[in-house]
Amino acid sequence: MAELADALASGASGRKVVEVQILSRPLSHSYNHNYNSDMMTTKSQQALRLIPLGGLGEVGRNMMLIECQEEILIIDMGFRMPEEDMPGIDYIIPNISYLKGKEKKILGLLVTHGHYDPMGAVPYFIGQLGNPPIYAGGMAKAIILRRQEDFSNQPKLRIIDVKDGSRFSMGCFSVEAFRQNHNIPDNFGYVIKTPIGNIVHTSDFKFDSAPVNDLPTDFKRLESIGDEGVLLLMTDSTNAEEPGHSLSEKKIMENLDDLFKNAKGRIITATFASLLNRIQQIITLSEKYGRKVSPEGFSMKTNIEISKQLGYLKARKGTILSTREVLKYPDSKITILATGAQGEERAVLMRIINREHPLLRIQKGDTVIFSSSIIPGNERTVQYVKDNLYRQGANVYNYKMMDIHASGHANQDELKELMSLMKPKFLLPVHGQFSMLVNHARLALEAGIAHKNIAVIENGQILNVTHAGISIDKKTVPANYIMVDGLGVGDVGEVVLRDRQSLAKDGMFVIVAVVDRQTGRVKGSPDIISRGFIYLRESGDLLHQVRRRVVEIVNQSSGGGGAVNWVYVRDNVKNKVGEFLFTKTQRRPMVLPVIIEV
Amino acid sequence: MAELADALASGASGRKVVEVQILSRPLSHSYNHNYNSDMMTTKSQQALRLIPLGGLGEVGRNMMLIECQEEILIIDMGFRMPEEDMPGIDYIIPNISYLKGKEKKILGLLVTHGHYDPMGAVPYFIGQLGNPPIYAGGMAKAIILRRQEDFSNQPKLRIIDVKDGSRFSMGCFSVEAFRQNHNIPDNFGYVIKTPIGNIVHTSDFKFDSAPVNDLPTDFKRLESIGDEGVLLLMTDSTNAEEPGHSLSEKKIMENLDDLFKNAKGRIITATFASLLNRIQQIITLSEKYGRKVSPEGFSMKTNIEISKQLGYLKARKGTILSTREVLKYPDSKITILATGAQGEERAVLMRIINREHPLLRIQKGDTVIFSSSIIPGNERTVQYVKDNLYRQGANVYNYKMMDIHASGHANQDELKELMSLMKPKFLLPVHGQFSMLVNHARLALEAGIAHKNIAVIENGQILNVTHAGISIDKKTVPANYIMVDGLGVGDVGEVVLRDRQSLAKDGMFVIVAVVDRQTGRVKGSPDIISRGFIYLRESGDLLHQVRRRVVEIVNQSSGGGGAVNWVYVRDNVKNKVGEFLFTKTQRRPMVLPVIIEV
Repeated sequence: MAELADALASGASGRKVVEVQILSRPLSHSYNHNYNSDMMTTKSQQALRLIPLGGLGEVGRNMMLIECQEEILIIDMGFRMPEEDMPGIDYIIPNISYLKGKEKKILGLLVTHGHYDPMGAVPYFIGQLGNPPIYAGGMAKAIILRRQEDFSNQPKLRIIDVKDGSRFSMGCFSVEAFRQNHNIPDNFGYVIKTPIGNIVHTSDFKFDSAPVNDLPTDFKRLESIGDEGVLLLMTDSTNAEEPGHSLSEKKIMENLDDLFKNAKGRIITATFASLLNRIQQIITLSEKYGRKVSPEGFSMKTNIEISKQLGYLKARKGTILSTREVLKYPDSKITILATGAQGEERAVLMRIINREHPLLRIQKGDTVIFSSSIIPGNERTVQYVKDNLYRQGANVYNYKMMDIHASGHANQDELKELMSLMKPKFLLPVHGQFSMLVNHARLALEAGIAHKNIAVIENGQILNVTHAGISIDKKTVPANYIMVDGLGVGDVGEVVLRDRQSLAKDGMFVIVAVVDRQTGRVKGSPDIISRGFIYLRESGDLLHQVRRRVVEIVNQSSGGGGAVNWVYVRDNVKNKVGEFLFTKTQRRPMVLPVIIEV
Repeated sequence: MAELADALASGASGRKVVEVQILSRPLSHSYNHNYNSDMMTTKSQQALRLIPLGGLGEVGRNMMLIECQEEILIIDMGFRMPEEDMPGIDYIIPNISYLKGKEKKILGLLVTHGHYDPMGAVPYFIGQLGNPPIYAGGMAKAIILRRQEDFSNQPKLRIIDVKDGSRFSMGCFSVEAFRQNHNIPDNFGYVIKTPIGNIVHTSDFKFDSAPVNDLPTDFKRLESIGDEGVLLLMTDSTNAEEPGHSLSEKKIMENLDDLFKNAKGRIITATFASLLNRIQQIITLSEKYGRKVSPEGFSMKTNIEISKQLGYLKARKGTILSTREVLKYPDSKITILATGAQGEERAVLMRIINREHPLLRIQKGDTVIFSSSIIPGNERTVQYVKDNLYRQGANVYNYKMMDIHASGHANQDELKELMSLMKPKFLLPVHGQFSMLVNHARLALEAGIAHKNIAVIENGQILNVTHAGISIDKKTVPANYIMVDGLGVGDVGEVVLRDRQSLAKDGMFVIVAVVDRQTGRVKGSPDIISRGFIYLRESGDLLHQVRRRVVEIVNQSSGGGGAVNWVYVRDNVKNKVGEFLFTKTQRRPMVLPVIIEV
């Protein structure tokens, strides 16, 4: 109770409180009164449950539930990109089946920032979950609203603006937002005041004393959150395996400045459309060196437009032009702000090097700046892009050659510093591969947090939290991947994926045999349709042998008179042809026999 | 001529000459006499042609031709691993069609070392090329011979032993081997004395003053090669984008020693079977700390066996045991030397974490040491392995956490040092992605080599070299990928690969319709065979609609009387069903209609 009382009081004691909203959901209100009245006596027995549905043991797809009694607060609702062995999948979203039937108990969704890993799944779920209120900063709100337009049958969202210091009460919880540096404006951590103590979620963050278009980290604020008492801290593990301190955007700016100063031809920058700080730097430098800027790529144009509207992107009138306009200027006055730093197949950079872009070709003397890291798994594609840029005469710079990209995530020193500021009793590493969570936990041990007070858990596990201790529940909730492929959500499962992998490896081999119902014998020559197996035109002999074998197998199986077991015959064809093809080629195409009785 | 005379004389002047062999091919002999007699007069007009068939613009598949008049010397004959978008492909070998019809002019194959990137394609080509003599160090020779056993119909190889200082004459060329540090013993560079001057090929190399199981780099020898005059240097670009100097194996040894000293449980090391230096380090450290060593994985066992036979691997009797034997010892006395550092699907480490290994499971307290870099593209799979090792309770160490792996390739400082030792007139960067070749060329510019004397070329281009200058020929020779898939060599081409990619993305959809020849109408309901598209059991309605459409399309097309254009009908079914499926799912499976008249 002490922490809560202090916290509620502190609004009047110096810190700026931007907004205080009381959520108007009946459930929230009743609970709100409830715990206020009997908390003193029950605090030690009360418990919270933290249930991650995504983001733990993976990068992206962040979604965390905090349950107090039966009320549920959701933090983030993101998606992630598919794994390498998931061909055709667009992205992966959380499994929310645990929330089915609990819609009325959902108090709201706190969104930390405007990237897709914390909010990309909103349009898939928000309607299904009874359209709970969404708490989001300006940037995240604008991107959420823009994205809703691409989905049909979406409810009208109830978005509550979050600013630094905003406070909201809902059910068990009283929430206060605090700003954190990342690589997009309006990134918020949340202090969630609960009957048993304060829970802090930092969002993805780094400490930056000289950020771009953002205020420096407010260490005093972080310290005062720590002084209020933090029962449990859940925080970003993405860079928990990276030693030292993340680079400041100031350093990046200096290096980019050098490149801009020395570039004689056009500058083409490749970065993420979501990396708004970097985009600002490129615009600022272009203005400094008299260059006009042309954003290229749909997501780049959209994000720049949103940011400009919100006042988050500063550009003089006439700096940002269309590519057609920009190309009227001399090369030394041109900056192209392109997507495709990961070698994405349809992004601008790939279209340029493949000579598919309507206006842009690489020309000798172009300076191409990759101001982004490489997402694991994309190394080869990025190398392909890089090689082709060099082939076409460009000068290429990337973060391996000089510090022209900084991660938005805290390195080991910052994670330790956060712990010393927050002094949490319990630590729950979130956001990262399992190895990152473990190494984050090791940092916590080094920082003096007791082993029993650190929880390394994964999606679907339940962490019971009381004031006295934490424990992992024996039960789990479903948290498997839900795959999105085109219009289908969750309809591509293990079976379909396995088939795709198998088809990719050795192709397929369909055999169509027509059987005369009366004689039980194959009529004519079986048809073979094969793709991805061998070059058929040069395999006439092999196909001939297969046809002969199919006729033999079918005739033998069916020729004995009496009822024919066609399932057996099909299996027989499948197995024998499969073996034959393997012997001849050491490949195992998917063999699919079709037997038609006429 | 001066260089050649000097070089021939130098054998008697202090340097150890291990072996001098004159090749007994008639062609070689005649040329050998030829150029000796009239070289003085023709040197300025004479020209060489350098033709890379692999290894330039890629990593691996090294193969270089040196043509003098019409004689051809081959350096290396390797393979490489497939790209990400080549499902099912085992590896890629060079296209040797340029050598067809020139078999008798091939003087021999110089192999630089016993890795597959310089010699993995030998069994595919050596017979086709008239079985020319192979010059190879002991380690390479043993591995080549062992590998031949896996291929049928191989000729008996003619392998000539190469040692440091070995000399061979063949045709135009007089060749001298010099040892270079890499990460496998018996790695040789070659000085190739030609009528127009000396060509040096360094092999993959690094400078190491404290290597393992190898002598330190002989800088004096390199300097004296430089003093003899180097017309053209072709050398390893793999690490041309890495600043500084490669790590010494001594540093690696110290860090590994720390891990061994502190490990209380079992140690499992994951490294390449070809990284023999590292394997020696692990064995030496195991002996130091009283551990028994069990090699796990076929290639690991084979390479250790070969190296032991050749005396390249030092292990006390009783150190190396089978896993069954090793497991009788206490955990603190066990080292498992495993393959699978890249997360290879069938390698030991993957089988252990997937609980498929007959004897080994990860147990709490195991120390797993990844003593290897990650090959670009394997990052996600390696992360999967790492995560699962942590999940199962192991402590994991890799090269990102501490220096426990060194590349076998020279970094920028070493490349520059080599240039200053060799003082080549011309530089040809080999072995590396195009960006690496370009950045190697930049280093050469910095080192004072004139721009016109540096050749950045790619596979299939021809570099004309005279004493006076170099030029790239307008003609090229075929150098495309030849893909090996199972028993097939080159039978998987663009078409098959594109089909595999397409099948992987959205699967396939075969429609079989039986049409009554008399009425032109579909009999019964068309069969649909689909895999990798959607989960069929839950798509009854969609399939029903497709069947209905197929019947309509076929009946409309064929019902008008007269001859039916079945090609047109099939295309019609394919397009209309394809569009329908895309509208319904936003996926594009490969639609394959089969129409059978009965």
